[in-house]
Amino acid sequence: MLESKPTPVVGIGLDSCVIPIRHGGLFLVQSTAFFYPLVDDPYVMGKIACANVLSDVYAMGAVEVDNMLMLLSTSNKMTEKERDTIMPLILQGFKDCAEEAGTAVQGGQTVINPWLIVGGVATSVCTQNEIIIPENAIVGDVLVLTKPLGTQVAVNAHQWLENPDRWNRIKSVISEDDVRKAYQRAMNSMARLNKIGASLMHKYNAHACTDVTGFGLLGHAQNLAKHQKHDVSFVIHNLPIIAKMATISKACGNAFGLLQGTSSETSGGLLVVLPREQAAAYCKDIQAQEGYQAWIIGVVEKGGRTAKIIEKPRIIEVPAKDTEGELW
Amino acid sequence: MLESKPTPVVGIGLDSCVIPIRHGGLFLVQSTAFFYPLVDDPYVMGKIACANVLSDVYAMGAVEVDNMLMLLSTSNKMTEKERDTIMPLILQGFKDCAEEAGTAVQGGQTVINPWLIVGGVATSVCTQNEIIIPENAIVGDVLVLTKPLGTQVAVNAHQWLENPDRWNRIKSVISEDDVRKAYQRAMNSMARLNKIGASLMHKYNAHACTDVTGFGLLGHAQNLAKHQKHDVSFVIHNLPIIAKMATISKACGNAFGLLQGTSSETSGGLLVVLPREQAAAYCKDIQAQEGYQAWIIGVVEKGGRTAKIIEKPRIIEVPAKDTEGELW
Repeated sequence: MLESKPTPVVGIGLDSCVIPIRHGGLFLVQSTAFFYPLVDDPYVMGKIACANVLSDVYAMGAVEVDNMLMLLSTSNKMTEKERDTIMPLILQGFKDCAEEAGTAVQGGQTVINPWLIVGGVATSVCTQNEIIIPENAIVGDVLVLTKPLGTQVAVNAHQWLENPDRWNRIKSVISEDDVRKAYQRAMNSMARLNKIGASLMHKYNAHACTDVTGFGLLGHAQNLAKHQKHDVSFVIHNLPIIAKMATISKACGNAFGLLQGTSSETSGGLLVVLPREQAAAYCKDIQAQEGYQAWIIGVVEKGGRTAKIIEKPRIIEVPAKDTEGELW
Repeated sequence: MLESKPTPVVGIGLDSCVIPIRHGGLFLVQSTAFFYPLVDDPYVMGKIACANVLSDVYAMGAVEVDNMLMLLSTSNKMTEKERDTIMPLILQGFKDCAEEAGTAVQGGQTVINPWLIVGGVATSVCTQNEIIIPENAIVGDVLVLTKPLGTQVAVNAHQWLENPDRWNRIKSVISEDDVRKAYQRAMNSMARLNKIGASLMHKYNAHACTDVTGFGLLGHAQNLAKHQKHDVSFVIHNLPIIAKMATISKACGNAFGLLQGTSSETSGGLLVVLPREQAAAYCKDIQAQEGYQAWIIGVVEKGGRTAKIIEKPRIIEVPAKDTEGELW
């Protein structure tokens, strides 16, 4: 749909673009995304939007972000008081997350619209060795995932607490308390930066990476597989999922596609292709630096640049609290 | 509202940001803007949005744009047929305009929303001498404007042709034909790139520049004045306005603020501060290269970093057709 000039190193098939620029053999890495509110805490929503915008740049291995722009639309259906309460919190969350990432928001635009929108643009100008072109997976590599799946299910289940019709359908399989815990875990996960995971890709010689967002684990794995230089395919054996979310998904007749890998994630983890002998150390290093688990979820086999989940994948129930610290 | 790190050379008081980056003494120049449709031709609307996004970068003297992102929202109130007809035309207009500017659209996002939105991001990575920091106006300089004012009035008047209540209020002062001509002239003007005007700023030693958009001529002049290093003020004597638009504005009780310089413009011209002895040559060069007139509209005096329009400015009626060629 969108054409290229000069030829980008990475096209828009992946969520960010990597473009050679005129000066000093440098590359421009950019990503943009915007979102409608999906959590009820405006400050956290700002953080999530920022983390997700940055995530596409991190997936390319670029960890130094030179600038962020913020795109906001206030809703014309909010009262003045609602607007003056909510918008500054979203803005603050976005800014704080950018600061945590070592960058800053310098520019943007705010408009008025029926729906509230929050999004942005991340830009990094990099040398070639700061970027990992995601195309070098080889047979024998393994797949690592750095955040659990199930954010969409958790966010929806939490909304259903206010909707008796919906809640009645799942209340026999999950308690209100478990829904709240899963929702907290999802918010925490979505607001967490993929920066350390990206930075460690260089240390452990990653061969390719994508982040997991709107197309779900399988969608992004397939897209990444398509971009590989070698005749490989990705086979996923394990699905780390926020505790109880697989149960809810089943109770809803798999409407989310969570176990099929097609459930949308917001600000999901990195799916990293690593040499088998480095993968465990990569996961351990993330755990040491961030207090969060990462998981080896699959292998790279010979194949036709496709990705699949095996018929009965192992579900790893990720406890609502799998970290020592708290993000906020 | 938005804070800076590292300190940008130009903050968001002006519509684009100029930020020193880590590599090679280079600067990142970025701007973003988005719009709701204001003309009834989707292809031209795409061009206008692109020209306006680029305009903020051009105002900094940067003429080589490394990348553009496009941000689109389709409206959920359009039928599938409307969407499939309109959106590709907007996209094509935007892309064609980017190509005309010597750059390309590589990345972006499309969402669904009640209102159609079209916008984007322009990014240029520049050496210092490619940028004109807009702060060096000195007493004796003159102000040049490169496009006529009155786009908002023309667009509104054209809409009123379909609205008998509104049309009855102005039909005694303007013919339907003149409204259509003014509207064509406005579309042509809004879709025109400010690239040549920007490029010639280097040749003729411009001291400062801004583009004229949402805050109108006076708003942007005041903003530019505020950023000057020296004790100067801008005094505007002449208002070049698309033919008959001043008449309409008066007939509407100055509701637009056109003669006060506060009428919004979309993708307006550059307001350039030039040495007096270079200004005429600058205008002549634009005319020679583009076939469009530019106007000396004011002077730089000693003052307190403010801008004003004199009490009875001279209205320059810009004919609907002041060019040999056609933009499309």
